[in-house]
Amino acid sequence: MKVGFFQFLPAHRDVEANLAHIASALTRVEADFVVLPEMCTAGYLFENPKELARYAEPVPDGRSCQAIGRISRERKMNIVFGMAELADGRIFNSAVMATATGDFHVFRKAHLFVDEKDIFSSGDMPFPVFTVAGIKVGMLVCFDHFFPEAARSLALAGAQIICHPSNLVLDVAQKTTVARAIENRVYWILANRIGAETRHGKTLHFTGHSQVVAPTGRLLARVGEETEELQVVDIDPALALDKHATPRNDLFADRRTDLYRL
Amino acid sequence: MKVGFFQFLPAHRDVEANLAHIASALTRVEADFVVLPEMCTAGYLFENPKELARYAEPVPDGRSCQAIGRISRERKMNIVFGMAELADGRIFNSAVMATATGDFHVFRKAHLFVDEKDIFSSGDMPFPVFTVAGIKVGMLVCFDHFFPEAARSLALAGAQIICHPSNLVLDVAQKTTVARAIENRVYWILANRIGAETRHGKTLHFTGHSQVVAPTGRLLARVGEETEELQVVDIDPALALDKHATPRNDLFADRRTDLYRL
Repeated sequence: MKVGFFQFLPAHRDVEANLAHIASALTRVEADFVVLPEMCTAGYLFENPKELARYAEPVPDGRSCQAIGRISRERKMNIVFGMAELADGRIFNSAVMATATGDFHVFRKAHLFVDEKDIFSSGDMPFPVFTVAGIKVGMLVCFDHFFPEAARSLALAGAQIICHPSNLVLDVAQKTTVARAIENRVYWILANRIGAETRHGKTLHFTGHSQVVAPTGRLLARVGEETEELQVVDIDPALALDKHATPRNDLFADRRTDLYRL
Repeated sequence: MKVGFFQFLPAHRDVEANLAHIASALTRVEADFVVLPEMCTAGYLFENPKELARYAEPVPDGRSCQAIGRISRERKMNIVFGMAELADGRIFNSAVMATATGDFHVFRKAHLFVDEKDIFSSGDMPFPVFTVAGIKVGMLVCFDHFFPEAARSLALAGAQIICHPSNLVLDVAQKTTVARAIENRVYWILANRIGAETRHGKTLHFTGHSQVVAPTGRLLARVGEETEELQVVDIDPALALDKHATPRNDLFADRRTDLYRL
């Protein structure tokens, strides 16, 4: 099975340009799962909910889902991408999976980062796992990686692959996501963006270095900090069904839930 | 405050030699906390409980606790070391802290690695935290690092420093313990051993690379794979009281315990 990521620089507040750029890029690759960055249809920095609302869309009826869903069906590719989701009058920082068979699955970022707390509602989803192409897949968004409970919840629910659209500005996710893969024996696809964004006097620099990690922690791909990159690697998702770190240590069976104080 | 580790090659089944080696080494350093490897008083490989029992000792009345406790008091140094603990007819793979004030604190390895399951009882302690020299300290033993719940339990109970005696044969703890420090904003002292041990046709190679990690994930010390090393670094344990990864993200307050499925 082929999985990968598309690391790029989303145009700020230009949804049409981003959808065209994504469509163009994804014609260059064959893959079963491709992950794009967080908030990659409209960019990241918005000053207030009102400004953000102009770029928030319902799932799956908004133009971003419709456009990317069309690519998914035509290319027979499951695509995970980040977008501002409008639902019941609230706006979530969501990851959406547009499947090759025309379905849409959503995860709403559970742990909001810094000033996202001013413009997004916190996610309300207890880490759902979706079966797509016979594989169990979970999604997290950016800062969710910091909390081991998030990936653990997905893995305990059966996730073999964790898709992780991100807009990272720190340098730690490349380390934590290797640990997440190791401790849960899952594949991890971290898709970060590149470039900088300035809005209302605030500038953020995004740090690239998207990566795919195997259940052993081995890096199957890691790209640069500043370059657009479309990378696909071969994986065997069945490996993520076996939780043995050694012949006698099943990482899930060995958990000491009688002792943890969480 | 000065903390560090003593990475060395314990002599297999020669407790007197190891206690003398430890005493000699620790005269060369001033420190508040020093961590030694797992099972460092007798070595690691034992074929069965009967063989292991010859090297298991009660805490604090056994000769290892008495000898190391004497160093702790004389040198005003809190020393964490791994040993086989005999208690109520069972043998645990324990970390013991001999404090400068003459106390002894114990943690019994919760997650047993491979054939340890044949000779040790599993730990029965829900990740206790001890206040020593005004600092809250937790202990884990080797494979416990694999399970994020273990360090999380200690950190939620207030641990500022996690002392981690190890006999590592894999290469992953150097990665996971950096993540543990980051996700919990604690200091982490990983003390591994070096060398190899052969017993009853089985040989294990231990992988060194002991390290001290700051709450940001920064490596304050990391040593080689094959050399004896006594390293001490300066830390400010008060930094581990502040769980902010950003000014608006307290990693403990931001946890979504309403959503986790553990």
